Amino acid sequence: MKLIRFGNPGQEKPGVVIDNKRYDVSQIVGDFDEDFFAGNGIANLKTALDKNPSLPEVAAEVRWASPVSRPSKIICIGLNYADHAAESNMAAPAEPVVFFKATTALCGPNDDVMIPRNSVKTDWEVELSVVIGKKASYVEETEAMDYVAGYCLHNDYSEREFQLERGGQWVKGKSCDTFAPLGPWIATKDEVKDVNNLRLWLSVNGKMMQDGNTSNLIFKVPFLVHYLSQFMTLLPGDVISTGTPAGVGLGQKPNPVYIKEGDVMELGIDGLGTSKQTAVAWKKY
Amino acid sequence: MKLIRFGNPGQEKPGVVIDNKRYDVSQIVGDFDEDFFAGNGIANLKTALDKNPSLPEVAAEVRWASPVSRPSKIICIGLNYADHAAESNMAAPAEPVVFFKATTALCGPNDDVMIPRNSVKTDWEVELSVVIGKKASYVEETEAMDYVAGYCLHNDYSEREFQLERGGQWVKGKSCDTFAPLGPWIATKDEVKDVNNLRLWLSVNGKMMQDGNTSNLIFKVPFLVHYLSQFMTLLPGDVISTGTPAGVGLGQKPNPVYIKEGDVMELGIDGLGTSKQTAVAWKKY
Repeated sequence: MKLIRFGNPGQEKPGVVIDNKRYDVSQIVGDFDEDFFAGNGIANLKTALDKNPSLPEVAAEVRWASPVSRPSKIICIGLNYADHAAESNMAAPAEPVVFFKATTALCGPNDDVMIPRNSVKTDWEVELSVVIGKKASYVEETEAMDYVAGYCLHNDYSEREFQLERGGQWVKGKSCDTFAPLGPWIATKDEVKDVNNLRLWLSVNGKMMQDGNTSNLIFKVPFLVHYLSQFMTLLPGDVISTGTPAGVGLGQKPNPVYIKEGDVMELGIDGLGTSKQTAVAWKKY
Repeated sequence: MKLIRFGNPGQEKPGVVIDNKRYDVSQIVGDFDEDFFAGNGIANLKTALDKNPSLPEVAAEVRWASPVSRPSKIICIGLNYADHAAESNMAAPAEPVVFFKATTALCGPNDDVMIPRNSVKTDWEVELSVVIGKKASYVEETEAMDYVAGYCLHNDYSEREFQLERGGQWVKGKSCDTFAPLGPWIATKDEVKDVNNLRLWLSVNGKMMQDGNTSNLIFKVPFLVHYLSQFMTLLPGDVISTGTPAGVGLGQKPNPVYIKEGDVMELGIDGLGTSKQTAVAWKKY
């Protein structure tokens, strides 16, 4: 299944994509949140849909929202592609680099990205994200996939000055409003044949900037779920963003290139759809 | 007012402390969560209590829970007392060091602290925490106190090997289950005469280890609210933990001292009560 949410901010409803059309499933499930994933929601929804119920179609003009309702955490993995570590002038890590992104950064896949006030180094990062399906503590790598609900596309926007030049930890440059456009959909695990062989790409104003493949992930999905669960409890609906391949603005030669108002970022991952954000100045959200 | 929550994990209810007794206010308010703080909940509760309603008393044996229902984020400030920066062999920062703690670490003030599996360096940190009262983006320092709901006591447990020796960012050593015992209560802002002059202390097995005063905070509460709001939107109910004074286990001479099973941590802050945690091995939570 392809799980979506739609509607204006604060009024989102759950839906599904079938044959490229969006359908409202709010009469079957409440929302795609912790309770949904914890309560065997994917299997129950599939059973309900197998009965071919009559579902209202969602009009084309209705906003695509984040396919996950606010999770308890968005966990990001840094420097998880060797080519991106190299362009960032950092060593490929011996074990995963982990940081958080504020959940207030979450937004719809095609919402405008707001350049924060005082930002001069807003940057893009196409990433494969994993949605957790059940509570996970101290999970073995061999069992880790049992804890995965599905996957989605994520643009892990980053303000490089805030992240790297303002003292200490990266979270400062990762958590601005609209810095986590997620979706268009969650592809449930069964929809993705081989998560370790998906092309992921991102263009800026039509020019291809990132073009990688998840086969180059240093730390792969089962290991990441296992690894993170040694340090914290993962809850159903939590999002793990697995890192970005080379081609971010910071890595451009001879000089870095950052986002300015009016720039258009388009991105995609095989089977996980595409998204598109236009850069605007920060405004009350 | 002193706001509390009580009851077993997953079944917590809101209450208040009046004259050292705990009262159930669940017939007046739903919970002390984002909606409560956003919806003028403190003022409304005060109005309701001013009418001297008959409130059920909470039995002494009932568990004290975190006084805040799961917030969108727990933001911590690192190295915010000069003496603690020195004992950590780190420079006092030019601007705040910011990191997150997973909200899954939240627990009651007197719950057992669980030493994570494979931990050899679990440490304590008494801290003043601030609870946000309304949505804050780009707040001026002079107006920052309008966004504060109240204060509470926090033990920012930290696994130093996970935090400092496992690659990259601190969040790995800050997010284990039970690493954020909060409370006993939220003292609403009006209860605290001078937040910049509160003694805070922590003992281990009866021996005083930390004994500081918030007058030594490098970055004070209004500045922190202003500063953080430049990088992310703060939501009602969000928790900011302002850093710890000298005396953590990592800083002991001639050798660091870490927590072992059976150790008892007691801590307190003027006007914000005391809490007590006993260290146990990790168990399913």
